[in-house]
Amino acid sequence: MRLSRYFLPVLKENPSEAQIVSHRLMLRAGMIKQASAGIYSWLPLGFKVLRKIENIVHEEQQRAGHIPMLMPTLQSADLWRESGRYDDYGEEMLRIKDRHGRDMLYGPTNEELITDIFRSHVGSYKDLPLTLYHIQWKFRDEIRPRFGVMRGREFFMKDGYNFDLTKEDALHAYNRHLVSYLRTYERMGLQAIPMRADGGPIGGDYTHEFLVLAETGESEVFYDSAVTDLTFGDRAIDYDSVDQCAAVLEEFTSKYARTDETHDEALFAEVPEARQRTARGIEVGQIFYFGTKYSEAMGAKVQGPDGKTVPVHMGSHGIGVSRLLGAIIEASHDDKGIIWPEGVTPFHAGIVNLKQGDEEADAACEALYASLKALGLDPLYDDRNERAGGKFATMDLLGLPWRITVGPRGLKNGVVELTSRRTGDSEEMPPEAAVEKIAQIYAGIA
Amino acid sequence: MRLSRYFLPVLKENPSEAQIVSHRLMLRAGMIKQASAGIYSWLPLGFKVLRKIENIVHEEQQRAGHIPMLMPTLQSADLWRESGRYDDYGEEMLRIKDRHGRDMLYGPTNEELITDIFRSHVGSYKDLPLTLYHIQWKFRDEIRPRFGVMRGREFFMKDGYNFDLTKEDALHAYNRHLVSYLRTYERMGLQAIPMRADGGPIGGDYTHEFLVLAETGESEVFYDSAVTDLTFGDRAIDYDSVDQCAAVLEEFTSKYARTDETHDEALFAEVPEARQRTARGIEVGQIFYFGTKYSEAMGAKVQGPDGKTVPVHMGSHGIGVSRLLGAIIEASHDDKGIIWPEGVTPFHAGIVNLKQGDEEADAACEALYASLKALGLDPLYDDRNERAGGKFATMDLLGLPWRITVGPRGLKNGVVELTSRRTGDSEEMPPEAAVEKIAQIYAGIA
Repeated sequence: MRLSRYFLPVLKENPSEAQIVSHRLMLRAGMIKQASAGIYSWLPLGFKVLRKIENIVHEEQQRAGHIPMLMPTLQSADLWRESGRYDDYGEEMLRIKDRHGRDMLYGPTNEELITDIFRSHVGSYKDLPLTLYHIQWKFRDEIRPRFGVMRGREFFMKDGYNFDLTKEDALHAYNRHLVSYLRTYERMGLQAIPMRADGGPIGGDYTHEFLVLAETGESEVFYDSAVTDLTFGDRAIDYDSVDQCAAVLEEFTSKYARTDETHDEALFAEVPEARQRTARGIEVGQIFYFGTKYSEAMGAKVQGPDGKTVPVHMGSHGIGVSRLLGAIIEASHDDKGIIWPEGVTPFHAGIVNLKQGDEEADAACEALYASLKALGLDPLYDDRNERAGGKFATMDLLGLPWRITVGPRGLKNGVVELTSRRTGDSEEMPPEAAVEKIAQIYAGIA
Repeated sequence: MRLSRYFLPVLKENPSEAQIVSHRLMLRAGMIKQASAGIYSWLPLGFKVLRKIENIVHEEQQRAGHIPMLMPTLQSADLWRESGRYDDYGEEMLRIKDRHGRDMLYGPTNEELITDIFRSHVGSYKDLPLTLYHIQWKFRDEIRPRFGVMRGREFFMKDGYNFDLTKEDALHAYNRHLVSYLRTYERMGLQAIPMRADGGPIGGDYTHEFLVLAETGESEVFYDSAVTDLTFGDRAIDYDSVDQCAAVLEEFTSKYARTDETHDEALFAEVPEARQRTARGIEVGQIFYFGTKYSEAMGAKVQGPDGKTVPVHMGSHGIGVSRLLGAIIEASHDDKGIIWPEGVTPFHAGIVNLKQGDEEADAACEALYASLKALGLDPLYDDRNERAGGKFATMDLLGLPWRITVGPRGLKNGVVELTSRRTGDSEEMPPEAAVEKIAQIYAGIA
């Protein structure tokens, strides 16, 4: 993309309404614009990252064997009356009447609707195991929406639901989700630590939240520092293997890691003192096995191999897709702006032309732009007539991981400059070498 | 995908609520399930096609230089009061009050919101031309929703908005949209004819609807049969070229083609009688230049090269993404089921194992499945323990363009059968040849 043809309304001043850095940087970098309280328009740059995150979530869910579908945003109140949640859910549920006066709602989650789909179409254990998921806009009418997309009212979320014959099978689905979530977050350059969560009114031991450590996190967290040494990496895993998935769960959850909701001082005291850590964290996902709560209330039953009809065991598993943009920025920025991890960066590299209009510089930039595109990469070329200082400041704000700087002086020596946004280190090299290096960095990522 | 692991709830009986063939076939093929009146869940097969159509629209919009973004589903009523449409819009607008009693609405379209974004960030002609678009769920509270996704209440639509300094520039944007729409529909295997439309209360000569001919279309259409001979094909076009885009508009709109709303008997009579056609059509898109209606009402102005401030010239351009699934099926089916065009088929080919459990047949199917996937193709393998007749009927209903049938008898002679869903023609060949042929068919499509 050429910046002169893009819509990138960068703000020079810090917007006064933004209390946290991710909100401030998303507004300044022209990624979002508030449409009304807690509701955002995703400007082109923001939408591009949102879509990348969505695609990573899709890929990792499907790799785990989960099946994509899409439920609507508006739901009938009737299903929620069946489960008993229509009255339980407070004012955060946006209730709507249509022109015929029928009670509708903007779905804050989808247990009822997916259970209805399941019970309408599945009647035998032979169709299990089954995990369906979707990525759809949801609405929660937060009384005080704030922190930009981190705590908005209209938000984009992946929610998946497993249906299994037995508790044992459902716990494999639980473990499978945990593994797929670890992979998902790592691809986004995030370390998200699974922490034992509170089962809420349903209770149960089987729920973990995934937290990204960040000073601005809404939760206080307590953990054994050994958990931050764990990485999933590129290990191969067979998602059908009960043992493999269980081993990953064991590895990633056996050390102490809890939020304030489930924190246990006595247990924490057993962690070697040098490894006890307290910090703040942002919740970016949760997995939850809740057994037969909805299947019993709504009659989602299957015939088992013994001919008996039993309610299915279910769980629901969420990833906060729009919230992740905020979390990534909270975890990865400096005082100049965002620093995108390669896996989610909106553009793979920026090209800065130090002297727009200089024949040689323009030609070199065009050639770089074309070479990167020919390799399937997506560069952002700042072809505006602006001072170098302004162009650098914009690129730093946007946070593309790599910048190629092109100027007449370097070109005389046959070189351009390749700069890492994260380290700030620059290196001079011929243009072809810069292209080659960027291609290598993104091989297997882009 | 292996059918045994997919969620494909095929219906044996014709659902009584479906009045038209696309609705019936989408329900029977397990593509959608009604969630409430005019609101559908997209089951995995339906979602897969929806996503393919969405991606084609994205690709063609971006090819034309239009910039993707995303506006929210819920909007504040205030903006609509500014444009004057809050009161004008009737009961089809779903009006909502949030917990603080603020007036909101579920966006039926986005002229107000995009104009607000524009006026907040753009002040100079130097930032023009600009075309922004998004693909987002919309809601129109139809009094009698029917025909499945063809006339639902919650629907998925691409709407794009151009901002230009002059009427002349805006008409180039209009033409550019027309060209991109022609390409878009052809990639989906559809012939959509641009027909002069009614400007409605705004008036104006610059609006065309795109209609797909189908017996169940809601509009009566009148046209010169010569328009159906026109195809865009794979001609190269420079979307920045005013002349090239204008020439395509001229070519595709100079012959008579109108809906009943704009039909002119006298003009129609000038068409050679042998070429006069009357038929029915389904509207799948509309382009519209409306000048300064919103920019004046909402103060979306830029400074021109002469230093004077003027309201921008705008247009809005829509493609009914979810509706297109219905339109494609109306245009492409037979009494056995759907016939997907290659560009949008949910799976590239089906593999039918005539004797599941037979060692040789199973191995041959697995090998075919692996070979197709290795080529980046996406096969659906019917690996269920079912009679051949049932498997064929399912494949015909689903409408995958190509089917490979594998049975012990053929394998003895080293062959499988490749069948075209459209023609019904079958050909025996070695498995490798079938894979090769399918790969060739999808080269440049998939």
